[in-house]
Amino acid sequence: MSDAAIEVLGIGNAIVDVIANTDEAFLAAHGMSKGGMALIDEAQASTIYDAMGPGIEASGGSAGNTIAGVASFGGKAAFIGKVRDDILGEIYRHDLRSIGVKFDTPVATSGASTARCLVLVTDDAQRTMNTFLGACVELTPDDIDEALVASAGITYLEGYLFDPPLAKEAFRKAAKIARGAGRKVALSLSDSFCVHRYKDEFLELIAEHIDILFANEAEIAALYGVDDVAAAADTLARQVDVAAITLGAAGSLLIKGNERVTVPAAPVAQVIDTTGAGDLYASGVLFGLSRGLPLAECGRLGSIAAGEIISHYGARPQTELASLA
Amino acid sequence: MSDAAIEVLGIGNAIVDVIANTDEAFLAAHGMSKGGMALIDEAQASTIYDAMGPGIEASGGSAGNTIAGVASFGGKAAFIGKVRDDILGEIYRHDLRSIGVKFDTPVATSGASTARCLVLVTDDAQRTMNTFLGACVELTPDDIDEALVASAGITYLEGYLFDPPLAKEAFRKAAKIARGAGRKVALSLSDSFCVHRYKDEFLELIAEHIDILFANEAEIAALYGVDDVAAAADTLARQVDVAAITLGAAGSLLIKGNERVTVPAAPVAQVIDTTGAGDLYASGVLFGLSRGLPLAECGRLGSIAAGEIISHYGARPQTELASLA
Repeated sequence: MSDAAIEVLGIGNAIVDVIANTDEAFLAAHGMSKGGMALIDEAQASTIYDAMGPGIEASGGSAGNTIAGVASFGGKAAFIGKVRDDILGEIYRHDLRSIGVKFDTPVATSGASTARCLVLVTDDAQRTMNTFLGACVELTPDDIDEALVASAGITYLEGYLFDPPLAKEAFRKAAKIARGAGRKVALSLSDSFCVHRYKDEFLELIAEHIDILFANEAEIAALYGVDDVAAAADTLARQVDVAAITLGAAGSLLIKGNERVTVPAAPVAQVIDTTGAGDLYASGVLFGLSRGLPLAECGRLGSIAAGEIISHYGARPQTELASLA
Repeated sequence: MSDAAIEVLGIGNAIVDVIANTDEAFLAAHGMSKGGMALIDEAQASTIYDAMGPGIEASGGSAGNTIAGVASFGGKAAFIGKVRDDILGEIYRHDLRSIGVKFDTPVATSGASTARCLVLVTDDAQRTMNTFLGACVELTPDDIDEALVASAGITYLEGYLFDPPLAKEAFRKAAKIARGAGRKVALSLSDSFCVHRYKDEFLELIAEHIDILFANEAEIAALYGVDDVAAAADTLARQVDVAAITLGAAGSLLIKGNERVTVPAAPVAQVIDTTGAGDLYASGVLFGLSRGLPLAECGRLGSIAAGEIISHYGARPQTELASLA
């Protein structure tokens, strides 16, 4: 462990998931792109919610899920994100704080309600997400606690943060503080549509500020205009310290300098809902890196966390990850 | 099918569950009676919530769960219950309406928030419930839609409704309307503590108004002061048309006149959370009775529904029960 007071600090959109089963016809009827994340406004959220089936609610948000995973492994974790002073915001804060995550971002007392993501899960366990960003748009550079960022071994940023304009500025501010303090900065590319929206900015950001990069194959393809991960591996190795690329059921590939480590996915009896698979994979890798573990071990922890999360609905661990490690 | 527009109408406390894993020590530290349901005020709810782990949220409430089960079997179902005009109330209404349940009780626009139940699940899958009744106390006899009750083949009442004073009056009003219209009235005894609170009133109610009675062994013991169900079977057979007594992992016993049918529990790969087991058992039996099915078949449907619900967190079906029947 380093001298960092916080091992991993996550900054992301604070979102409560509303998870329901659906079928392909529903996705088609509503023009949804299966497996993707679409931004919707409150009126669209209302329309989709009225049409979808009964759900369960659970705290989510990409970086929030990752941070919950880090805490579940036993890591010292913190989160910066914006909720409103409403019941969903209360739930969101509770679900992080109750597992020991430091989460002190001031809540919004006016404006839109706490963000919701309507997560539609098909029988193949794929999830299609529709996000109403709500109070997330109120996250500003002022919410970036400089001392906290400077004290965190790794600051982890989700690409989705580029969607709310002020959050993007907050994102850049955090990255600069972290680097200035000699800390590591990690980025998740989040979603291939997100990469298409911000490709040039992401490329610049990676070149300038990112030490650790998380992505899946589609995101790498979108970012570098390549057909497969292998074609981008050397570029990644030059640009970042560590790249961790998820390959779905095939596991993941970790890249560090000349090292190439392939890690299998953890066996899962029944895959129920893949929401959060990438987020939780990142939690294992980040926890491992923060403890200075070998790359293969970091990947193994990532696989364990991803395997736990896809075995049930919802993107927060239901079994303590430390007990599975 | 009878001439009833609605096959089963449920009247109950409209409650959103907040479900979290816990251990025996937590229950002991907070003086909770394992397996029971305790009424708590908003301040106690806040204290317990602050102390408990991260959760998931899902619509619940005993009769609400049963009605969701009836609808999931394909039955025409309706619900009367009180929520507030807040986000949890919106979720509660959505989760019933989206599966075709008629639910038109006016929402409360002032007073306490929508009811919450803090459900603590131990490793043995037992659930311990702490209910803040919130807006449920606003349910009054005026909320009993006379035409709806008169049109429903079976009106199903949860014993928990005796806790909010005006709801008890609403309960009695509904029972009288249903019987006056030549319909059937069903009651769940809900909880042995609930039986202890209202023993004499329940005995009088059963004698006067109840056609179909649901209970578990502990509730029967509390009501009749007997050691086992067998000792009360003849009394039950005289007092109600049908009594359906759940026996935990041993299944259930259905009693009708001289008939005694024992039904095994459905096999379940892993029991995760027993919340709603009795509620969903009732849904299968009520659906079967409303369709005029033989007693053994009613019990079998009850076992199937209970088996589905205990295989995951939350007390609403995640698989369409009609597909399992």
